[in-house]
Amino acid sequence: MPSANASRKGPEKPREIVDAAEDYAKERYGISSMIQSQEKPDRVLVRVKDLTVQKADDVVWVRARVHTSRAKGKQCFLVLRQQQFNVQALVAVGDHASKQMVKFAAKGRRISVSLRPARATDEFQDRLQSYTEKPCLKKQKKKQTKKKIVETRNSLTCLVFRLISLDFDAVLQTSTSQAIFRLQSGICHLFRETLINKGFVEIQTPKIISAASEGGANVFTVSYFKNNAYLAQSPQLYKQMCICADFEKVFCIGPVFRAEDSNTHRHLTEFVGLDIEMAFNYHYHEVVEEIADTLVQIFKGLQERFQTEIQTVSKQFPCEPFKFLEPTLRLEYCEALAMLREAGVEMGDEEDLSTPNEKLLGRLVKEKYDTDFYVLDKYPLAVRPFYTMPDPRNPKHSNSYDMFMRGEEILSGAQRIHDPQLLTERALHHGIDLEKIKAYIDSFRFGAPPHAGGGIGLERVTMLFLGLHNVRQTSMFPRDPKRLTP
Amino acid sequence: MPSANASRKGPEKPREIVDAAEDYAKERYGISSMIQSQEKPDRVLVRVKDLTVQKADDVVWVRARVHTSRAKGKQCFLVLRQQQFNVQALVAVGDHASKQMVKFAAKGRRISVSLRPARATDEFQDRLQSYTEKPCLKKQKKKQTKKKIVETRNSLTCLVFRLISLDFDAVLQTSTSQAIFRLQSGICHLFRETLINKGFVEIQTPKIISAASEGGANVFTVSYFKNNAYLAQSPQLYKQMCICADFEKVFCIGPVFRAEDSNTHRHLTEFVGLDIEMAFNYHYHEVVEEIADTLVQIFKGLQERFQTEIQTVSKQFPCEPFKFLEPTLRLEYCEALAMLREAGVEMGDEEDLSTPNEKLLGRLVKEKYDTDFYVLDKYPLAVRPFYTMPDPRNPKHSNSYDMFMRGEEILSGAQRIHDPQLLTERALHHGIDLEKIKAYIDSFRFGAPPHAGGGIGLERVTMLFLGLHNVRQTSMFPRDPKRLTP
Repeated sequence: MPSANASRKGPEKPREIVDAAEDYAKERYGISSMIQSQEKPDRVLVRVKDLTVQKADDVVWVRARVHTSRAKGKQCFLVLRQQQFNVQALVAVGDHASKQMVKFAAKGRRISVSLRPARATDEFQDRLQSYTEKPCLKKQKKKQTKKKIVETRNSLTCLVFRLISLDFDAVLQTSTSQAIFRLQSGICHLFRETLINKGFVEIQTPKIISAASEGGANVFTVSYFKNNAYLAQSPQLYKQMCICADFEKVFCIGPVFRAEDSNTHRHLTEFVGLDIEMAFNYHYHEVVEEIADTLVQIFKGLQERFQTEIQTVSKQFPCEPFKFLEPTLRLEYCEALAMLREAGVEMGDEEDLSTPNEKLLGRLVKEKYDTDFYVLDKYPLAVRPFYTMPDPRNPKHSNSYDMFMRGEEILSGAQRIHDPQLLTERALHHGIDLEKIKAYIDSFRFGAPPHAGGGIGLERVTMLFLGLHNVRQTSMFPRDPKRLTP
Repeated sequence: MPSANASRKGPEKPREIVDAAEDYAKERYGISSMIQSQEKPDRVLVRVKDLTVQKADDVVWVRARVHTSRAKGKQCFLVLRQQQFNVQALVAVGDHASKQMVKFAAKGRRISVSLRPARATDEFQDRLQSYTEKPCLKKQKKKQTKKKIVETRNSLTCLVFRLISLDFDAVLQTSTSQAIFRLQSGICHLFRETLINKGFVEIQTPKIISAASEGGANVFTVSYFKNNAYLAQSPQLYKQMCICADFEKVFCIGPVFRAEDSNTHRHLTEFVGLDIEMAFNYHYHEVVEEIADTLVQIFKGLQERFQTEIQTVSKQFPCEPFKFLEPTLRLEYCEALAMLREAGVEMGDEEDLSTPNEKLLGRLVKEKYDTDFYVLDKYPLAVRPFYTMPDPRNPKHSNSYDMFMRGEEILSGAQRIHDPQLLTERALHHGIDLEKIKAYIDSFRFGAPPHAGGGIGLERVTMLFLGLHNVRQTSMFPRDPKRLTP
């Protein structure tokens, strides 16, 4: 392959003698051999996003995908794509490019090109001088990939094109997917960064467990050598064991499995849990404040560091910027009930919130307090799990809380009962077989500090921060009762 | 409960009138009620590690475990523990403490104490003025927990005491466990910090998959609604799909499942994988260098930020500090063969390294190059998986590598074949049913950049960095063919 400079000095031939037999540019294009790490050339590949006006007089090499190619007479316009960045290139019959080369360009292949920037605009345009590399795009596949991910009831069928969507879709889809998952990576990073700065320790909890952690319903069974085992529905027991072992503040990020046959916009059978557990001194609000502040740090970090990604997604899925207060708004359940009743909802004092009522409450809170994020505290004891600490002032309430983004629940948590005697009483009250939770109760017999925690669904946080409407858009390889591939 | 100041001003009584009936200190100790988040008191709890000489004249409150209590005549010595930090306290019959109070102290309970530091030494000693809180330690349990985690063939039985060990063991065990898992948290943090700085994106890959990813052996089966599914043996396919989707540099941290009936010091059925995949320009050594540098950054970070933990572990498990070079030593397989042959080992050119030979090689490399960490490159093609890219210069070699710490493998990786035609040929050569890996091969048909990667075992890195000898010491809740609890 001639170097870019060599090709610029190539012999010039008058156009009229160009014909099929004679291709004076044939050394400037073609299909390269597979890169098998044969050599370590000095050639520098420039990133598309770095093609700025400063490079206007340079001849540069770029390796990119052909996003579109459009032949028109003696020239071919190519849009070259690298992740979310594009540059337009022009191959025109002339000194450096032959008729055959233009024809080859029009086919659309994965290419390396040597570009000399000529105009510095958003859509960079220049003379394509030479290109090579593997062919990759088949017409038929290309057609498929142009389907949009549209948020409708039928949108689920589009997910089989996820891989293609990440890669080959039209520019909007591609940029959107890239942006969603870059932002999701950012959520994990900010979550950990914040907690490590707060003195938390990251723990790793097992996913294969010997007994169903929350009573046996909705749990996947695994064949474990000659026995059965189960997939953990939450790391809660293990987080609490670490608290009993004086780790004081722990977090973990990992898969959570729910064998629920729920086919809704916000349920997955496998999702990523961001889990927190923390010992406190005197009041579980110490923990609520730490968790709420962690989420606020995530929101701030995303708005500071991922503005490009937020803008990109909002081009396809327009949405108001996410709003939050500092410190976070904390409402008590009875206040929420009063707001809902004022809006015409009929609900009992110890009744749980339905999904439509949660959404309505989200709108009412937004109107009244101008925030998309808040904590709902003091849930009725009756609607929470047996290990939830009762409210010391009102036996019908509990020291438990949910957190909401745009009216949807993203975290559920509570002060846990750390006293084995009270825990036993509450389990009996719930009709739970004590034998099955013996190990859990026993873990508090060695002395446990008071503690509270909660679990956050990563895909829901991503979805709701960006104002999307289906959790499958924020799971790279979603799993639901009907989907196990790719 | 009287405040600390109040208790100091309490009435003084002559010692001779103290008797069983009259306890002039009774308001200064006892069992407190369960903390149910009743109130938010102003009381500040001081951390044991913060009891410095500057606090010598303060009366402070501490909440800690009783590590040991030793009564001797009219006084009781308590060692109070908070995570890895201890302070010694003295309760002596006198103005503030009664005979009954000393007796109560001798029982050993989880306590809050108000201390006035008197001497500032490692073992802080002072008059215990008042203490309360829940009882927690039963004699019988305490006895059990004094077992040491000793590294012998029988050490595995000690793991059933893991929770207790994390919490209640004698000081060495406790500090060791705390230190091991704090350092492990640091490895994850440094891994991600380094890769995010290098422009990598964190991805989340599914653990429930529809087909066994590596041929079907050693895979756990899951009941998935009315069908069967499997637990992922590695995120490799998903990492590669992200590369095909132009993410360019990705990593993930998550559980990896192997249904191998291996009962060795370094095998677990569930472990944590630190996985990397990266597109490169011309040579897979670009990726090898990135991975090796990531590990070097982890080693440096641990030695800079976790010196206390390293020292703590080495008190119980003495070990030479971990040594590494910059840049990392990269040996070719044939060089390693020559070193082993010179040391008397008989091996064929295309034979894999046995575990004893890996360890021997580690010692030879340490002697010759003074490093505990190195890359072994260019493995024989015959001993690597079908998707490994052959070496372009020698068809019996491959573009694959392992990385070693103290003579044990911690990472296995390779340039992957990104050309569907060559991949098909290699699969056929290995006698693999093409139907079963169709989706894998098809994922390269849309055009894939050349790429390489590898997977690191977190528990192994922790074990070998600290010079430990069983991977169960570095897994908080280890899983092996015979262990599913806690």
